Amino acid sequence: MIIVMKPSALPQDVDKIVDAVEKEGLKTHLSHGEEVTIIGVVGDKTKLDIQRIEASPEVEKVVPITESYKLANKKFHPQPTSFKVKDTVIGPDTMTIMAGPCAVETEEQLLCIARAVKKAGATILRGGAYKPRTSPYSFQGLEEEGLKYMKTASDETGLATICEVTSAHAVESAVKYVSMLQVGARNMQNFELLKEVGRAGLPVLLKRGLSATIDEWLNAAEYIISSGSPNVALCERGIRTFETSTRNTLDLSAVCVLKERTHLPVIVDPSHATGVRSFVEPLAKAGIACGADGLMIEVHNDPAHALSDGPQSLNFEQFDSVMEHIKPYISLSGRSLM
Amino acid sequence: MIIVMKPSALPQDVDKIVDAVEKEGLKTHLSHGEEVTIIGVVGDKTKLDIQRIEASPEVEKVVPITESYKLANKKFHPQPTSFKVKDTVIGPDTMTIMAGPCAVETEEQLLCIARAVKKAGATILRGGAYKPRTSPYSFQGLEEEGLKYMKTASDETGLATICEVTSAHAVESAVKYVSMLQVGARNMQNFELLKEVGRAGLPVLLKRGLSATIDEWLNAAEYIISSGSPNVALCERGIRTFETSTRNTLDLSAVCVLKERTHLPVIVDPSHATGVRSFVEPLAKAGIACGADGLMIEVHNDPAHALSDGPQSLNFEQFDSVMEHIKPYISLSGRSLM
Amino acid sequence: MIIVMKPSALPQDVDKIVDAVEKEGLKTHLSHGEEVTIIGVVGDKTKLDIQRIEASPEVEKVVPITESYKLANKKFHPQPTSFKVKDTVIGPDTMTIMAGPCAVETEEQLLCIARAVKKAGATILRGGAYKPRTSPYSFQGLEEEGLKYMKTASDETGLATICEVTSAHAVESAVKYVSMLQVGARNMQNFELLKEVGRAGLPVLLKRGLSATIDEWLNAAEYIISSGSPNVALCERGIRTFETSTRNTLDLSAVCVLKERTHLPVIVDPSHATGVRSFVEPLAKAGIACGADGLMIEVHNDPAHALSDGPQSLNFEQFDSVMEHIKPYISLSGRSLM
Amino acid sequence: MIIVMKPSALPQDVDKIVDAVEKEGLKTHLSHGEEVTIIGVVGDKTKLDIQRIEASPEVEKVVPITESYKLANKKFHPQPTSFKVKDTVIGPDTMTIMAGPCAVETEEQLLCIARAVKKAGATILRGGAYKPRTSPYSFQGLEEEGLKYMKTASDETGLATICEVTSAHAVESAVKYVSMLQVGARNMQNFELLKEVGRAGLPVLLKRGLSATIDEWLNAAEYIISSGSPNVALCERGIRTFETSTRNTLDLSAVCVLKERTHLPVIVDPSHATGVRSFVEPLAKAGIACGADGLMIEVHNDPAHALSDGPQSLNFEQFDSVMEHIKPYISLSGRSLM
Repeated sequence: MIIVMKPSALPQDVDKIVDAVEKEGLKTHLSHGEEVTIIGVVGDKTKLDIQRIEASPEVEKVVPITESYKLANKKFHPQPTSFKVKDTVIGPDTMTIMAGPCAVETEEQLLCIARAVKKAGATILRGGAYKPRTSPYSFQGLEEEGLKYMKTASDETGLATICEVTSAHAVESAVKYVSMLQVGARNMQNFELLKEVGRAGLPVLLKRGLSATIDEWLNAAEYIISSGSPNVALCERGIRTFETSTRNTLDLSAVCVLKERTHLPVIVDPSHATGVRSFVEPLAKAGIACGADGLMIEVHNDPAHALSDGPQSLNFEQFDSVMEHIKPYISLSGRSLM
Repeated sequence: MIIVMKPSALPQDVDKIVDAVEKEGLKTHLSHGEEVTIIGVVGDKTKLDIQRIEASPEVEKVVPITESYKLANKKFHPQPTSFKVKDTVIGPDTMTIMAGPCAVETEEQLLCIARAVKKAGATILRGGAYKPRTSPYSFQGLEEEGLKYMKTASDETGLATICEVTSAHAVESAVKYVSMLQVGARNMQNFELLKEVGRAGLPVLLKRGLSATIDEWLNAAEYIISSGSPNVALCERGIRTFETSTRNTLDLSAVCVLKERTHLPVIVDPSHATGVRSFVEPLAKAGIACGADGLMIEVHNDPAHALSDGPQSLNFEQFDSVMEHIKPYISLSGRSLM
Repeated sequence: MIIVMKPSALPQDVDKIVDAVEKEGLKTHLSHGEEVTIIGVVGDKTKLDIQRIEASPEVEKVVPITESYKLANKKFHPQPTSFKVKDTVIGPDTMTIMAGPCAVETEEQLLCIARAVKKAGATILRGGAYKPRTSPYSFQGLEEEGLKYMKTASDETGLATICEVTSAHAVESAVKYVSMLQVGARNMQNFELLKEVGRAGLPVLLKRGLSATIDEWLNAAEYIISSGSPNVALCERGIRTFETSTRNTLDLSAVCVLKERTHLPVIVDPSHATGVRSFVEPLAKAGIACGADGLMIEVHNDPAHALSDGPQSLNFEQFDSVMEHIKPYISLSGRSLM
Repeated sequence: MIIVMKPSALPQDVDKIVDAVEKEGLKTHLSHGEEVTIIGVVGDKTKLDIQRIEASPEVEKVVPITESYKLANKKFHPQPTSFKVKDTVIGPDTMTIMAGPCAVETEEQLLCIARAVKKAGATILRGGAYKPRTSPYSFQGLEEEGLKYMKTASDETGLATICEVTSAHAVESAVKYVSMLQVGARNMQNFELLKEVGRAGLPVLLKRGLSATIDEWLNAAEYIISSGSPNVALCERGIRTFETSTRNTLDLSAVCVLKERTHLPVIVDPSHATGVRSFVEPLAKAGIACGADGLMIEVHNDPAHALSDGPQSLNFEQFDSVMEHIKPYISLSGRSLM
């Protein structure tokens, strides 16, 4: 950590800061520049109240050098994480395809979709039973009833299942029925939910918040891991920008950044990122090409009549076609389709 | 609502959409342009599944004409809302000042701050007992203990109190001790929390999400009102942009937009918006000048040693000075300091 | 075009707008909804002053249905454009690699880089002679001297050449020495320059502005084409967002959007988009995978001593390696390396 | 300047960087932390090629401590700048009102507007003769003819005049007719134009780019000042964000930031920032309240028939009313209406 003093800081101002830091057992190194004095701080910064220092009137700014997340940090865990979700593996050697409807509607619908995505090569069935919707008047999901259908579909097809949870109560129900929990973009900094999800112990898919920086995202993963769930995958699903041609802007450079900063697997969701059916295939290929460990794709038996997020859902034929077309890219990436 | 067909749509494609809409009891008007056909839809759109229509392959886009929020909508409730929080009133005739520390630290600290902000003219004491923090290793608040101090401070000074809640459990505790609940920016679309808060029945301050559009914000307010709490105030606290000179970008045009779209009162928080102490006064004045119904300002007895958000907190002398300097602006706005 | 009236609009207000539109020879269709009246406008909107209509007090908003660009529009030119730059072809069947230094430094440096990138498979040599730099005190380029080196390098190696132009004067010089002109991100809406570049007649690479929407970008291309140069390629080079881990956010969904809206070829620049050397290869692969017609990559003989943009430049060995690793992706895309 | 080495950097890597820095005559201070080594650099950094250092494989990042702009920097010029434009003064003691049409249409129109804005209290007449328009098919301005009308209006009313310039050729014409030059948002980083404008010697109004950081903006001002024009005012006119309720997001915290970093006067343009007529008055008041030195407001004799930007223009009655209502705010700010 580096503390940059203001040009107007007097020697006694510098001394005051140095004393405050050293009192906590850390060491300091001074650099007296022609314009400003800089204090390098060495040691365990968790003991230090950084905002207290930043609030001092003669401090210009505090520059952190090391990240605040530890368990999610590649520096302390250089090997890529790999974990099982039912019979499938998410990790550096596999390409995991999660597919299914945005919202679970009926048992028949879900079974029919489950069989179709399994046949095409997916190993995890996605399906929403708790839907966070912008308006209170939109369809909010089947809740526990939907989870039961997920269990039936898993039992019949052998697919693993993933479901978004939106409250402590939903977590409690979901752990009884599904293989993996999902935290949605709107809840990425719902820290109480992150802790609940971590305590549940199931593998977790953590979607990136609409305007979350990569550091905030990794700190959110840290909440889950430090609460008890080491098996966290990160899902890039588009960020909010000024561009309105696509629903969000898929940030594939984030995949590259994550691969440098964390050992956790990264999933790309081209369906939610763009909201446009015809962009799913090219961006699925792009996601694989730049290093993703898996894809999340929306599939529906009848997208034109889906209760939620129809415009981006693929029908079975389209999903089959995408799966066929991405296979050579999976081979090129040196992974096997899981 | 307007449905714009693709240039490639055939008459039978248009008929299919018209049938689907009219089956729900709505009326349609066709406009055959040289390039595209447009279907105007008249009637109660809540019966309609808009995404189903948007998913039809021959539909270019659906343009909503009316907003999805009703209870928060000025069109259906033209008079500005005004409500009491303990002895203070938030509404069109008053300027409500909420002041206090970012985080409650000790009973003594809180009492000392409460007395100071009351003396300077604030009527609502703010103080965080549940702190949503980016890193799990940062101070997370005193929880129920902090709420008790808030109650003590209120009993002693007569100030109303407001506290952020971050979970159903926190709501349950908070209603026993404070006068008003706050939903923070990170939880603006935590819909389960919005419903809990609405059911609690206390007045609510709803902060804008870091990258929430004004429409999403008003829909979030709709969740609270439709769950039982009509007394919601909206707090503009800065949005996330590319500019890094201030922590966030205070969006004062949002105050103007809100005054056109909703009857709910609007509070401006210059402390969190900028993260810079010296910007609090000029932006407090600007907030009053453009129509805000109140201000939320961070005040601490010892900002250089605050446990949270020190750099933007004012000490007592600075807060006194800000209050003195904003008084003529409050007079100009035709409001009385509450 | 659709004109949405305000709920408060009276029949005579609607009549006034209808009259104004029909006076210009267009036709209108009225839709009287329960809440608002909508006027559909049919015919040649270029005759209409849209802002005049939007300014009418009883108009809520004007919704454009068709794009303002014509020559760049795929609707009126469905076949993908393909054009020659010296001996290379940019278009749907080829993958064009533009490589070279950010700034031209010396003749020896440029020749040495030209030979290396040609050997690795590039066909267009990039090199900056006019550098738009944030600070007036940074190196601004060799200007005409640099252009001469470009010509020498082209003569010796047979490579085509591309150079950014920043003024009418630079255009005048550049046409004498290089094969293709580049308009940089900061000048994307420098309309006077766009017209100059269009009049010059050479093929043009138009980089996307830092916060330009895709529609603004295509309108900028329209300026060039309508001034005389039909051979325009668009270069996605990252947009400005809140995320600071990469210099910009590479928007690969823009490639998909462009392929739907325009017939012009699309180039992806992973070097400038991210500013990080190790991200160039994965994002080059991703760009090819999602449909790009070419790549622009920064290569330098000695990146650690480059005068401009060192951190993202590849050395020869790194560029050779990237070229080897992207070849299977080029094959998969059904294109041949040009 | 601080150079942060990577954790993997060896002592010889550090030595290499230290040598490179000291060879340029600067001094270094080493801080060996438990995780990383930090090199403090002291002396004249303009001699140093920072990007060369950042490109070194063992360097993590370079943290600049001082700004790259000097002439625009308050540190080296602590007194606020004040300058004359014809008979009016822009500076810390005055509130300068620039008003007029977006585009000059006819001599009669301009004269009529000039008389009206003068009567209401404006001292500078704005009017566009060169209009940068997104589409090449939109009205582009009357060019030199429009400038002549500006001169006539100035001669008749005594008002100073300001006009946007978009090319070297426009600068050449404009200096013959108007009192102050304006560089528009789209040209903020058109560095060739900035130099031309600087050489012209007239006072300059530099609008902020759509997504320009405050530092880029001050560096753009540095181009103008270092080319010969010390009299530069900065105009905040809204930045591009995700929010679409207003055309741009007016960033009033930028006014506060500018007042800390630069001695140059700051003008606020609520008309272009929001694009909404009814927001001009509240945001004009807010701009004055937070420290602006002037306002730019669009006024038109017949906004519903304006050739450009009608929706945000005020008619004469509305402008009179705004002027009346802002007067008490000007008094409060301790300035006199100029």
